[in-house]
Amino acid sequence: MFKELEILSAAQVAELRGIAASARFVDGRISNPHSTVKQNLQLHDEAAYDRSSQILTQALYGHEDFQNFAFPVAMLPPMMARYTSEMRYGAHADAAFLQLGNMGLRSDLSCTVFLSDPDGYEGGDLVARLGNSEVRLRAAAGSAIVYPSTTIHRVEEVTKGERLVALTFIESRIADGEQRELLYELNEVAAAAGEMMDVDTYTRLQRVQQNLMRKWGDPD
Amino acid sequence: MFKELEILSAAQVAELRGIAASARFVDGRISNPHSTVKQNLQLHDEAAYDRSSQILTQALYGHEDFQNFAFPVAMLPPMMARYTSEMRYGAHADAAFLQLGNMGLRSDLSCTVFLSDPDGYEGGDLVARLGNSEVRLRAAAGSAIVYPSTTIHRVEEVTKGERLVALTFIESRIADGEQRELLYELNEVAAAAGEMMDVDTYTRLQRVQQNLMRKWGDPD
Amino acid sequence: MFKELEILSAAQVAELRGIAASARFVDGRISNPHSTVKQNLQLHDEAAYDRSSQILTQALYGHEDFQNFAFPVAMLPPMMARYTSEMRYGAHADAAFLQLGNMGLRSDLSCTVFLSDPDGYEGGDLVARLGNSEVRLRAAAGSAIVYPSTTIHRVEEVTKGERLVALTFIESRIADGEQRELLYELNEVAAAAGEMMDVDTYTRLQRVQQNLMRKWGDPD
Amino acid sequence: MFKELEILSAAQVAELRGIAASARFVDGRISNPHSTVKQNLQLHDEAAYDRSSQILTQALYGHEDFQNFAFPVAMLPPMMARYTSEMRYGAHADAAFLQLGNMGLRSDLSCTVFLSDPDGYEGGDLVARLGNSEVRLRAAAGSAIVYPSTTIHRVEEVTKGERLVALTFIESRIADGEQRELLYELNEVAAAAGEMMDVDTYTRLQRVQQNLMRKWGDPD
Amino acid sequence: MFKELEILSAAQVAELRGIAASARFVDGRISNPHSTVKQNLQLHDEAAYDRSSQILTQALYGHEDFQNFAFPVAMLPPMMARYTSEMRYGAHADAAFLQLGNMGLRSDLSCTVFLSDPDGYEGGDLVARLGNSEVRLRAAAGSAIVYPSTTIHRVEEVTKGERLVALTFIESRIADGEQRELLYELNEVAAAAGEMMDVDTYTRLQRVQQNLMRKWGDPD
Amino acid sequence: MFKELEILSAAQVAELRGIAASARFVDGRISNPHSTVKQNLQLHDEAAYDRSSQILTQALYGHEDFQNFAFPVAMLPPMMARYTSEMRYGAHADAAFLQLGNMGLRSDLSCTVFLSDPDGYEGGDLVARLGNSEVRLRAAAGSAIVYPSTTIHRVEEVTKGERLVALTFIESRIADGEQRELLYELNEVAAAAGEMMDVDTYTRLQRVQQNLMRKWGDPD
Repeated sequence: MFKELEILSAAQVAELRGIAASARFVDGRISNPHSTVKQNLQLHDEAAYDRSSQILTQALYGHEDFQNFAFPVAMLPPMMARYTSEMRYGAHADAAFLQLGNMGLRSDLSCTVFLSDPDGYEGGDLVARLGNSEVRLRAAAGSAIVYPSTTIHRVEEVTKGERLVALTFIESRIADGEQRELLYELNEVAAAAGEMMDVDTYTRLQRVQQNLMRKWGDPD
Repeated sequence: MFKELEILSAAQVAELRGIAASARFVDGRISNPHSTVKQNLQLHDEAAYDRSSQILTQALYGHEDFQNFAFPVAMLPPMMARYTSEMRYGAHADAAFLQLGNMGLRSDLSCTVFLSDPDGYEGGDLVARLGNSEVRLRAAAGSAIVYPSTTIHRVEEVTKGERLVALTFIESRIADGEQRELLYELNEVAAAAGEMMDVDTYTRLQRVQQNLMRKWGDPD
Repeated sequence: MFKELEILSAAQVAELRGIAASARFVDGRISNPHSTVKQNLQLHDEAAYDRSSQILTQALYGHEDFQNFAFPVAMLPPMMARYTSEMRYGAHADAAFLQLGNMGLRSDLSCTVFLSDPDGYEGGDLVARLGNSEVRLRAAAGSAIVYPSTTIHRVEEVTKGERLVALTFIESRIADGEQRELLYELNEVAAAAGEMMDVDTYTRLQRVQQNLMRKWGDPD
Repeated sequence: MFKELEILSAAQVAELRGIAASARFVDGRISNPHSTVKQNLQLHDEAAYDRSSQILTQALYGHEDFQNFAFPVAMLPPMMARYTSEMRYGAHADAAFLQLGNMGLRSDLSCTVFLSDPDGYEGGDLVARLGNSEVRLRAAAGSAIVYPSTTIHRVEEVTKGERLVALTFIESRIADGEQRELLYELNEVAAAAGEMMDVDTYTRLQRVQQNLMRKWGDPD
Repeated sequence: MFKELEILSAAQVAELRGIAASARFVDGRISNPHSTVKQNLQLHDEAAYDRSSQILTQALYGHEDFQNFAFPVAMLPPMMARYTSEMRYGAHADAAFLQLGNMGLRSDLSCTVFLSDPDGYEGGDLVARLGNSEVRLRAAAGSAIVYPSTTIHRVEEVTKGERLVALTFIESRIADGEQRELLYELNEVAAAAGEMMDVDTYTRLQRVQQNLMRKWGDPD
Repeated sequence: MFKELEILSAAQVAELRGIAASARFVDGRISNPHSTVKQNLQLHDEAAYDRSSQILTQALYGHEDFQNFAFPVAMLPPMMARYTSEMRYGAHADAAFLQLGNMGLRSDLSCTVFLSDPDGYEGGDLVARLGNSEVRLRAAAGSAIVYPSTTIHRVEEVTKGERLVALTFIESRIADGEQRELLYELNEVAAAAGEMMDVDTYTRLQRVQQNLMRKWGDPD
């Protein structure tokens, strides 16, 4: 239910860092005016947003394992955010339904794309709460971590350096997290063992997958 | 599950009465040709319908408690109807799916906006059947009553005076009536007690609300 | 969703025929007094019922594919019935909940065990209705046909010879027919291809099966 | 969803009043020690409880319309309660799961059996909240009102005379209130019109009823 | 759950055969490039596709019993396919979600419209698997067979003559096959017996139908 | 969804260690004969099992937060297991339904009670897989970790010292993990903030909790 994916090439990371370097960033509360826990900067520059979100959107949609894991039907244009020293994002839950202009979506999965080298900053871990245990998440530049929007999570204080990330929210065809994961797992089984199966067995497995998709998937 | 809301100002009530006074009304079976129980008059005048439905739509959508109670995602343009002496609408169930031109919606909630003073007519109560008990509904001019489209209900015979109302049907993001009510109740708890809670408790309550929205809400 | 299983040995068939030959049979309406469509004879003899139902119960429960297909948690003691010439059982739907003494069960699956040779009688097919198509069922002596209790079905008139069967009703851990079938199919895939899989893939497939069982299965 | 049923004969009412007259009643908080809103008296006398609960249990289970409406699978032994002047039971929600000795049940329906003549006391109405509307319930001696345990309800202050009732909680085979009501309604349709239908139509209606029972009903 | 419908007039059959006679057909794998079991020819001619799919779409949507059985909300434009000698379509399961240009739909029902006379070809039966039983389907020219996309099915080898059909996939408002069938059955009961019912009974039956539609139907 | 609880006193830990020290342990495959990944020792001594499982059962059932988190309706008698050097339990998924003598249960939650001091052994972490992330679990002697039976998990090789634990499986009234967690969270909100709420708000919150229990809870 937490998935790390390498989605960007080194060149794409460099291009995104370049866009960030020369674009305007403002207080992140611009999009969450009532938040008392958000302390970061986010991109506020139309041309830079268009270009960067296009690169990121194509990279995610074009990644086969992202498709298999997320079953995406809608995604907000990813937005770059920057945490400089002492910035953080306190514990919060993501809203269920988001509106951006005319586009509305249910946020099933949240996604952080890491653009800084993990050695380039201290602190700044993404931490998701699971009961009274926690999962601590940090990835290489160019990697994305996709995680359920249903958890309470936070970004810890950056104590040194700068953490540049891009963030987005994804509506999945499969709303329920456990169902989505079971379909992903069946697909992995089919990918790993399908070629060894006789045709009839493989057809039966495919039918199970497709019928679970029918049963659990939102209509278009 | 029955909700009375004050949605119109005195000026808006007066404007709607004025529109009704000079507009054309026809036999209400124009929109339910097979009905044997509908005996009322309804507006049949394009300009008057445009203007009156706009006032009513804005008043409903702009009312915070209507939003909280109904979780509206679609609503037919409200239609004025008039019951003069001896008119009534016999017991009936509202259809599940309605089509008006290109717009289709599932009718989860029905809404009557009262435009006459309750003292200005006798009879004419809206009565909803609950097992072998009944709920009798009548409200002040400017008030709306929102009730589940799932009940069998009727408008009793008007025995004196005139009953002017506007009617509409609402698709809710939350199809199931009990789920919708539980979300409304949790929101009321958060509104009444949220400010007294410590931040962590309030964040946990918000997460429960958002995750129930994800679980129960129709996708966009 | 219709499953034919060879459950009895020739010796068991012979023993059951022997029991039937010397036991008392009465009008089948004894257990469905209001039925206007049931025209058969059924066993009404305590010792014969004890003995025959024990043989049949053990044969069914002991059959691995029956276990895999039906996920049985309760079963009525199978009852022998006899259709002699001109007998039939008109179209009917099986009741959802059955009570026999202290034992109550939900009938998800119905089961006919064939004790006569199919050449020994004419007519007498079991026919299940599927929309405006039909499935016609007839099996060898010793074979059982397990089919959903949810269909409308009938036994056609026996026009020659005698049709001896045993009948029972099964409560499945998996109430829903489509879910039950998907679990059966996944189990067949695991049985056919599990040994070829690497350990991790096989563990993932087992987890999917067990989690679907948790999700869909009735508690004990 | 609120159902009034005549369940006791005049003789049974008289017998229950006689039992109550000579039995011990204590503060009702004996079974809800933490309640701040319960102000009544309840029977606390083993022999009287055995006898009175037996009469009431048999009367309810033996009433066909109670069976059709409630689909009962378990019921607590009904307990007599007495409201004398100034007593009341403030607004509360009934617990979902109740335990009485070894017996545990889910309370889907609550039931008040009225033993006093409605003219024999003032106040004391049972009031159930529905959104911001209310249903007010009061019935003749010998009648029961069955209502969903899911509402917030209260007993208003008795201002004159004495209100003697018996109370119980029922687990229904059909947990969901709307599903239970739809099954009840279909059964009423079958009872009212079944005899006029041709056999095939009636068989199809019965199949729909039984398959909804399978789909929605708890297993035994 | 398998439904045969007469949807085309003799003239429409003739027109479609005429279109097929002069249009281009290509290897059917053009739309299923990875399939190892598809061996047929399908129409590949824009004008012929536009004209033929229009005739078929109108005929299906305009057929009342198709509406009642399928509850269609979307349908791919039907595509003509031709099986000449030795062609077949091996066992396969239909995909859950289909995309054709901008149009996406969930395939709940598959539909074969027969354009050849059944005596004009040998073999070529459509066979659907149900457990270890099978349903064999073949209909007159002008008839359609509508069947669940959830089964494994095949077209047997044509051994003589030519089998011309049109194929399409339908998204139903009611995703689940058993729910869809129960609604169809209730509608049949209402059609057969509604006129004999008193008004109140008929209103109650309509309410059950509409509330099941609300509960089970996908939103628009 | 992972919960650590302090359930045993130091005296109870000492008593359990004493029982383990003098009791017979055998190869753990005795209860999983087909397992290729289980390499540990488990208690095989009737008196020791009776005594130790009683201590553990009472400690768990008597712990309020365990009740609130797990909603237990059945639990296998906890079984002590010992991992000495080089022992491990490879990745596996727990079975959905378990049978021990006459007792059957659905395993929703798995529970490990730690009896060794964490410094007394190296390796031996309990590791649960979440997508391609992991949660690593290790607790103080006397603490329990309760976690969903739905994950793939393993016990890593003990490289030094001895790891003594007790293990059990719990059937929850609330089968679904996300629903169970939301009820736990609402209960925590009520515990933290209930006393500050006015009576009406608190009653409404309790009603939401009880109605979710009705909706989601298995019947008794």
